[in-house]
Amino acid sequence: MTHPLLAELAAQLPASALVTDPEKLAPRLVDERRKLHGSTLAMALPGSTEEAALIVQRCVAHGVPIVPQAGNTGLVGGATPMGDKVLLMACDRLNQVRQVDAEGYTMTVEAGCTLDEIRATAAEANRLFPLWLGSSTSARVGGLIGTNAGGLQVLRYGNMRDLVLGVEAVLADGHIYRGLHNLRKRNVGYDIAQLMIGAEGTLGFITAASLRLLPSEQGRATAMVALPDAAAALGLFTHAKAEVGEVLTAFEYIGKAALEVMTAQHGEVPQPFTPLPNCAVLIALSGSQPDNILEDRLTQLLMTASCEDAVLAQDGSQTEALWALRELIPSAQRRAGPSIKQDLALPIGAIPAFIEEAAQLVAARLPEATPVVFGHMGDGNLHYNLGLAQDADVANCEAISNEVLFDLVAKYGGDISAEHGIGRFRVAAADDRHDPVARALMRKIKASLDPQGLFNPGVLI
Amino acid sequence: MTHPLLAELAAQLPASALVTDPEKLAPRLVDERRKLHGSTLAMALPGSTEEAALIVQRCVAHGVPIVPQAGNTGLVGGATPMGDKVLLMACDRLNQVRQVDAEGYTMTVEAGCTLDEIRATAAEANRLFPLWLGSSTSARVGGLIGTNAGGLQVLRYGNMRDLVLGVEAVLADGHIYRGLHNLRKRNVGYDIAQLMIGAEGTLGFITAASLRLLPSEQGRATAMVALPDAAAALGLFTHAKAEVGEVLTAFEYIGKAALEVMTAQHGEVPQPFTPLPNCAVLIALSGSQPDNILEDRLTQLLMTASCEDAVLAQDGSQTEALWALRELIPSAQRRAGPSIKQDLALPIGAIPAFIEEAAQLVAARLPEATPVVFGHMGDGNLHYNLGLAQDADVANCEAISNEVLFDLVAKYGGDISAEHGIGRFRVAAADDRHDPVARALMRKIKASLDPQGLFNPGVLI
Repeated sequence: MTHPLLAELAAQLPASALVTDPEKLAPRLVDERRKLHGSTLAMALPGSTEEAALIVQRCVAHGVPIVPQAGNTGLVGGATPMGDKVLLMACDRLNQVRQVDAEGYTMTVEAGCTLDEIRATAAEANRLFPLWLGSSTSARVGGLIGTNAGGLQVLRYGNMRDLVLGVEAVLADGHIYRGLHNLRKRNVGYDIAQLMIGAEGTLGFITAASLRLLPSEQGRATAMVALPDAAAALGLFTHAKAEVGEVLTAFEYIGKAALEVMTAQHGEVPQPFTPLPNCAVLIALSGSQPDNILEDRLTQLLMTASCEDAVLAQDGSQTEALWALRELIPSAQRRAGPSIKQDLALPIGAIPAFIEEAAQLVAARLPEATPVVFGHMGDGNLHYNLGLAQDADVANCEAISNEVLFDLVAKYGGDISAEHGIGRFRVAAADDRHDPVARALMRKIKASLDPQGLFNPGVLI
Repeated sequence: MTHPLLAELAAQLPASALVTDPEKLAPRLVDERRKLHGSTLAMALPGSTEEAALIVQRCVAHGVPIVPQAGNTGLVGGATPMGDKVLLMACDRLNQVRQVDAEGYTMTVEAGCTLDEIRATAAEANRLFPLWLGSSTSARVGGLIGTNAGGLQVLRYGNMRDLVLGVEAVLADGHIYRGLHNLRKRNVGYDIAQLMIGAEGTLGFITAASLRLLPSEQGRATAMVALPDAAAALGLFTHAKAEVGEVLTAFEYIGKAALEVMTAQHGEVPQPFTPLPNCAVLIALSGSQPDNILEDRLTQLLMTASCEDAVLAQDGSQTEALWALRELIPSAQRRAGPSIKQDLALPIGAIPAFIEEAAQLVAARLPEATPVVFGHMGDGNLHYNLGLAQDADVANCEAISNEVLFDLVAKYGGDISAEHGIGRFRVAAADDRHDPVARALMRKIKASLDPQGLFNPGVLI
């Protein structure tokens, strides 16, 4: 412990709050996509808001940068410390549920609670915390807020931005911002919580949040639909919005290549359609009505739509099998070999034309790549990934993929990130492609709240 | 035109963009509650984003403060220019609908469109813009965003914060921030739109916004319910959330004194209950199901709840009559004499105890005042107004009302404004009662984006 900061922290914090053992640090220094291999001075693990404030205050005094890390499940390299002069600050020990107000449909939880934990806590109070995504066992509240997490039910319930009422955070000047509250409506000035959401740890260290809860779902109906193309999927979406809008919880698009890679890598998950269709859509309805009424509504919807084929889940295990077809696509891609991940935002109506034009451009510029296209169609969020051969030059392919696809999303009025964020991997693209006025405005805000630039340098801006 | 700014603006803008005629200015210099009587150098009315930028740039050059004004329907004095060295800047001429994307459920409208206009535009495309409030004929988009407007359907559809995707605005340095987009999800840095929403015109002049649209409602069911007290109303709310959560569009509480003042001042609006109950609740369901199904669901809900009496609207005119009982309360109070308006935010579960305790405190401290209590119970938003005698010392009563009620909301974890905002009337209370860290943070943001302090000085911070 040579750095004076570490001696100070060791003197003032419990032993469990400071980790320097390289073995314990190792998994924290690699990002989810294994593209970054970082290093750090040490990892601080505050067990209370006051401990978090102390850590930040000492870092401010020593000018030591801080990289906040939560579940380390992010996909844009936003939580990996890159250098042994940087302190990694994690929220694992901030793991208390502070309050559940079932009557008021809110709860207050600390930043280190996992998504599964807070969903279970809500369920115990007969309430729903509706955010749902693949990494729910590891993703933690602090990271969900920092990245404005989305996932599989944004269409119905919004993303994290729509579910956070207030935050508690240690600011870059070491002060504690105490913004927790259980109020659905509150107009008392600039919404500091909204500024921290999606800020990717660049404005402070979130210690706790007040979250909205919703009524528990009484019923659910799930179907997988085979369709000739993305235009038909868009038609089905438009029909579904009109017919079952307020109970339409998920509308996930899965292109043929994604179905193929699933079959090749996870053959044990049953594919409902033989031969594989050009595309499939997973639709879920849920709400206050029981299963049978929602199943009737879904059946009625599909009967009046033009689909090639459809299967309605008859029980919980069939529902899980249908969801597995969607949720296991990323792991199937991982098993199949190198790949490039994209997280494109598009106006929903532009998706069919985009998919067609992107396929032509990728075939021309990266003929060796296979577009594996799936995503949250109802949110205009397309994971336009590319599967590559084992010996591919991934970095070069990624550069070409970014150039081609980012140009094309811009043409359609879309953007380079819908839910993953900017992190380290998209900073250059944001600087190149976004309105300089918007980037300058972000830098002004950053400079005013973190004039030393201590929080997550190199990320976002 | 003695001020050099006016000569410059007159030379560079069309005649319709600059108003100095005192008669035309007069209605713009008084606030909705007629508490402020202001003055101004002139009123600028940009007809395009570029004209708006020019006006701001000239004001920056001359150091002339700007007060943005939209429909002038705000209730906290946030849009009244107070001094003849201040330029009033209004959005009336920015009145174009730029785009409606029905497939993508978005539209882009200029800041001067009224709420009624944009609701009608959405309806023409078979879509719903769900914000709904009493001043919908006059309230304009710029003001709805600046104040994060709420109203009668927040419970279901959220307030303006939940409905804005992006904004276009002239910043305090004269640059145009071009943040319009039709994307449901977009994680590309600090959310500048969210920062401008509820900023009450202190960070720039909003020229246009991209808004979320929803599916048109296919059916609606409305009932008025008589209940013994607020605790019973809370019980009904809890029951309704569980049974019909996703189609529960409004849950409005009306206390007995509010029913009485309605009867006294608007006797032509039929009261469904004789004698008047201790309180009434207006419940509305709406969604993709037809009227008859929603009416069945509402009837079922009320049969399984403990209400004293209930009437279900049988047709559109009965629905309107029930809503009139709620919507005409403010005008009934105006007719009845002087009054004090409050806009309290409370945890929903705390409302019954708050109402009881507030009644005792008001009786002790302001025995001459009548609490006229109503509001958006489902949002935890109580308009705890006080009716006063004709010869009352309103300012003194208001000071006592604020002291008593603001202390009490704090005790219950509430706040001093749910939807009206801070404006001029609540700045001192916010400075006194809110966390100094939060207020300092807002001042830092303001100073970094508007270092000269030109935008709406004296408002919010």
